[in-house]
Amino acid sequence: MATLNTKTGQTVDRSTLESMLRRRLFYTPSFEIYGGVSGLYDYGPPGCALQANIVDLWRKHFVLEEDMLEVDCTMLTPHEVLKTSGHVDKFADWMCKDPKTGEIFRADHLVEEVLESRLKGDKEARGEKVVVDEEKEAKKKKKVKETKAVKLEDAVVKEYEEVLAQIDNFDGDGLATLIAKYDIRNPATGGNLLPPVAFNLMFQTSIGPSSNMPGYLRPETAQGQFLNFQKLLEFNQQSMPFASASIGKSFRNEISPRAGLLRVREFLMAEIEHFVDPAGGKKHPRFVEVKDVEMALLNRDVQLSGSTKVELMTIGKAVETGLVDNETLGYFLARIQLFLERLGVDKTKLRFRQHMANEMAHYAADCWDAELQTSYGWIECVGCADRSAYDLSVHKNKTGAPLVVRETRAEPLKIEEWQIDLEKKKFGPRFKKDSKTVEAAVEALSQELREKLSLELAETGKVVLDVEGVASGKVELEKDLITIEKRTRVENVREYTPNVIEPSFGIGRILYCLMEHVYWSRAGDEARGVLSFPPVVAPSKVLLVPLSTHASFRPLCQRLTTKLRRLGVSNRVDDSSASIGKRYARNDELGTPFGITVDFQSVKDNTFTLRDRDSTKQVRASEDEILQALKSLVEGDETWEDVRKRLPELLFFLPFSFQKF
Amino acid sequence: MATLNTKTGQTVDRSTLESMLRRRLFYTPSFEIYGGVSGLYDYGPPGCALQANIVDLWRKHFVLEEDMLEVDCTMLTPHEVLKTSGHVDKFADWMCKDPKTGEIFRADHLVEEVLESRLKGDKEARGEKVVVDEEKEAKKKKKVKETKAVKLEDAVVKEYEEVLAQIDNFDGDGLATLIAKYDIRNPATGGNLLPPVAFNLMFQTSIGPSSNMPGYLRPETAQGQFLNFQKLLEFNQQSMPFASASIGKSFRNEISPRAGLLRVREFLMAEIEHFVDPAGGKKHPRFVEVKDVEMALLNRDVQLSGSTKVELMTIGKAVETGLVDNETLGYFLARIQLFLERLGVDKTKLRFRQHMANEMAHYAADCWDAELQTSYGWIECVGCADRSAYDLSVHKNKTGAPLVVRETRAEPLKIEEWQIDLEKKKFGPRFKKDSKTVEAAVEALSQELREKLSLELAETGKVVLDVEGVASGKVELEKDLITIEKRTRVENVREYTPNVIEPSFGIGRILYCLMEHVYWSRAGDEARGVLSFPPVVAPSKVLLVPLSTHASFRPLCQRLTTKLRRLGVSNRVDDSSASIGKRYARNDELGTPFGITVDFQSVKDNTFTLRDRDSTKQVRASEDEILQALKSLVEGDETWEDVRKRLPELLFFLPFSFQKF
Repeated sequence: MATLNTKTGQTVDRSTLESMLRRRLFYTPSFEIYGGVSGLYDYGPPGCALQANIVDLWRKHFVLEEDMLEVDCTMLTPHEVLKTSGHVDKFADWMCKDPKTGEIFRADHLVEEVLESRLKGDKEARGEKVVVDEEKEAKKKKKVKETKAVKLEDAVVKEYEEVLAQIDNFDGDGLATLIAKYDIRNPATGGNLLPPVAFNLMFQTSIGPSSNMPGYLRPETAQGQFLNFQKLLEFNQQSMPFASASIGKSFRNEISPRAGLLRVREFLMAEIEHFVDPAGGKKHPRFVEVKDVEMALLNRDVQLSGSTKVELMTIGKAVETGLVDNETLGYFLARIQLFLERLGVDKTKLRFRQHMANEMAHYAADCWDAELQTSYGWIECVGCADRSAYDLSVHKNKTGAPLVVRETRAEPLKIEEWQIDLEKKKFGPRFKKDSKTVEAAVEALSQELREKLSLELAETGKVVLDVEGVASGKVELEKDLITIEKRTRVENVREYTPNVIEPSFGIGRILYCLMEHVYWSRAGDEARGVLSFPPVVAPSKVLLVPLSTHASFRPLCQRLTTKLRRLGVSNRVDDSSASIGKRYARNDELGTPFGITVDFQSVKDNTFTLRDRDSTKQVRASEDEILQALKSLVEGDETWEDVRKRLPELLFFLPFSFQKF
Repeated sequence: MATLNTKTGQTVDRSTLESMLRRRLFYTPSFEIYGGVSGLYDYGPPGCALQANIVDLWRKHFVLEEDMLEVDCTMLTPHEVLKTSGHVDKFADWMCKDPKTGEIFRADHLVEEVLESRLKGDKEARGEKVVVDEEKEAKKKKKVKETKAVKLEDAVVKEYEEVLAQIDNFDGDGLATLIAKYDIRNPATGGNLLPPVAFNLMFQTSIGPSSNMPGYLRPETAQGQFLNFQKLLEFNQQSMPFASASIGKSFRNEISPRAGLLRVREFLMAEIEHFVDPAGGKKHPRFVEVKDVEMALLNRDVQLSGSTKVELMTIGKAVETGLVDNETLGYFLARIQLFLERLGVDKTKLRFRQHMANEMAHYAADCWDAELQTSYGWIECVGCADRSAYDLSVHKNKTGAPLVVRETRAEPLKIEEWQIDLEKKKFGPRFKKDSKTVEAAVEALSQELREKLSLELAETGKVVLDVEGVASGKVELEKDLITIEKRTRVENVREYTPNVIEPSFGIGRILYCLMEHVYWSRAGDEARGVLSFPPVVAPSKVLLVPLSTHASFRPLCQRLTTKLRRLGVSNRVDDSSASIGKRYARNDELGTPFGITVDFQSVKDNTFTLRDRDSTKQVRASEDEILQALKSLVEGDETWEDVRKRLPELLFFLPFSFQKF
């Protein structure tokens, strides 16, 4: 396991944080009283509120800020759609089954682990120092429990290393060969495994009462947006560019998910499809607003050289130098970074990693992942790809729906081209049932061929065409049947398939990484954890703490909670009999940024103490001042430092109102 | 089809509204370019925004207002959970297949339609007037296309009528008998049908790579809340009562869904589980706040008498008279009504219908549906049931998890009872392997029996017990083995299984019904539709319309849109070249409540015209005044009448700025 370093520089065991998150019901394994199902988690109240706040901020930051067209499409998706998109054939992992134990292994992971373990054993046998890649270790499923110190031949070591360097490139046959060649078995029992079979990662189901409509739970939210492109363009009054957006659950039937919230079978995604004209270099009108944003970029070449050293660079320079393919892609990369910063991620634990050539789909122009550093290593949380015209094209080709943009040209386009006229009256009687086939063959002739044929026609008075399936496969057309001439055609409308820039957010992953980033514990007491969420995403903004269960505090709490709610500031009253210290400690763990203490002085003069979670500093002021300060803190108009400067600080502990903790 | 009467008293064909809703992309059939899948719809931008606003209001009205514990549980659910809940066995409809055509019918609907059609034919043959129940007709799937005028025997008519009156009570065998007895066939072809088979309405899938974990897509969001009860109670610091809440998609594999958004296979639900102590009559501390809410109640007895006449009654009286079972149930019924009113539903098209005894689950104490009247008839949009302790009990019994509340008694409870002591030392040697069985039989003895046995023991020096499976089934215990005495036991802790009041909202149904309720068209022009959403739920709040595409308007629009966004007021600019009238007409159909016109005067003196959608009245004022008015209109602090009174009305049309439409 990689170490978890808090932002205050503490080193913490991940299990400390995770047990706190479960205790406070940020999340919990689903169906736990039934034994649980791996890869499925429920969010409890604080996790649910945190998720809602992240989604809300996402909607404001992206959808509202840029007038994106948000849609809500169904998760159930018929087979044919995902066949066309490529998911039925390619959204799969290879798995091997142990026929004796019934255990199932992901084939590539198994080969990787076994070979790595042998290489480690070899080093031990040679007496070399074994350097553990913590990041890789953290992600492993640890099927291989122990390493045997066995020396390998030099050639074998080299071979293993070569295999490992390209492990992602093997298909089922390739993996089967490796498993046979290197005698890879079930690490626990030594038993032989069956050859790898493809396991599609989509959950399959059947729609309707007959079994003739197979369907899947969508693996991403993108397809619904592509299928509705035409309607969205119409809704946008034919104006380009525009973006659609969607927030919703997607599904992935992982072979054997571990790693908590980071690898789950059901997850919340937020995806944007920005449709842009491929002509003109994919400029973005608002790129100027972000061009000076400095980003930590890990480019393809650096990775190829075996390094993970990031380069700090403004997005303006990255686009200018061609490192990032185009302005629109660059614009979204910068906007993603700004979004993550608003959420409260630690900027020093954020990098953008460019996809390697073999990692990207063949049609993609460029692709970058926003990765967040955690105790599990660097985790891909947002992908941002330029998918070219792939998605709209495949669905257009399959269905014939015009998923294209047609725009009137400012200047009509004049095209000089070879045109062919057929003498239809003679054509029909001559070819009879073959007429259409011959006609289609003529239509399909390239400009180059047409030019050649026009010469032939002029010279010989006839042309000979290849037409499969008609007569001998050769058809002769005399000049009374066909004319070939160079003419000028005027095109008033331009038709094109837009390209798609697709920023795709894994909300659950962002949520988990954020919790690691904002976690720390009070100096000298590791058990007293704090989650320093920024107010905008904190599950609840204010804790109301009456000094004791004394009846005189109740109406004040009631009034404050009602007023805060009306101001749109979520809050909770904790009037349990625990000490003030304990109640604040509980809310530090819940990440509540502010606390109001109601004490006997409050009953007398309607003043209250306001506490800041991170500094534990307090100010004291009138009800109106406190409420106003909270509103402005939560809406981000003021920081705690601003408030602290203008309201009287509480420097002493009232002897009767605060217990030392 | 029932008629669609707008709130302005117009009668409109439903298809007019639906084609407008599709044209404006409120919703659209999913996968339409692939031919579509019945029962699946996507929401386009206005539908999606409307849905988000309804959900947001729901969260404020219920979750935040009452500090409910919101959770987000997975949709994928393993078999065992839904087996326990009863869904695997009972969440099914009966279907019949035509083996020749492959057509599938819902058996109860088919029997109903065929018998109704025959009764209608009988009336025609007898020359009686046929009264069409429009509501029922609207819901029908119209398998039976034509009615034949054939007279039936009087006894047959009576039999048919009796069957129809209790059609919901037949199971598969019963339906099979009816189909055979009355020779019910495929109405289109006259072909015989296969006997009815149960079709479970859950979408089934398989979790993980092996096929040994069958699962379903949840049919409701409730189960996740029940399973987490213990953790939620702990999170709530053991304090009762409390409510959990959840918003999320659920699924129902309808046999052949029609009726648009009202019967779909994937839908958004919002459910509350309010956990309450069954002792003390299920009082609610805030009932007093709602007791004077007047509601249209359609009670069980009225329905039994064959009438649908509602009774107007305050919820206070309904609970007092026992019509509504208890305060907590009544509190939620009133809160549901208040919520629906805030959304903008027409109060005259809202009723609460009590479930009939045979319609309710056997464990339910009482159940009411909030129904909204539409062109499809009265539609159940919210159910509100008192489910007693059923759900927690079944999961507790199945898993052994303590889904109970344990509370310290204020006064320890003293219980006088007959206690039995066994002389364990002699007991073991005597009964050997049967010891445990005998012991359990002793433990299980009722107080009554114990009393009787104590007398027997005193008189005869021994007791004889029935113990199945031990010896002859009779066991004799002498007084050196057993003592039976009346003693006082002190119980400090009370343990109980909470009851659940469950308000359950079908968001998609509410959304559709709301659209019917707020729809009307401008006087004298049916083609000019308007959706009068209240500002709080309107998809977009403000339309910004520059007078023309003149360049001087652009910076003003830009500034206004940015400022409005900062105020939290969603808005859109329409700077297309269409006439102002056309642009406003488009936004009337989208339900945008307010419009700002930017004209040449605005460029000069920074004043703007503000238009109200419903009245088309306009006021003119400075930028700051307009922005402030919009904020207060959207947040519900002022009505249009308030604003109109305090800002100067625009009584004339500037000749250059408005085109007549």
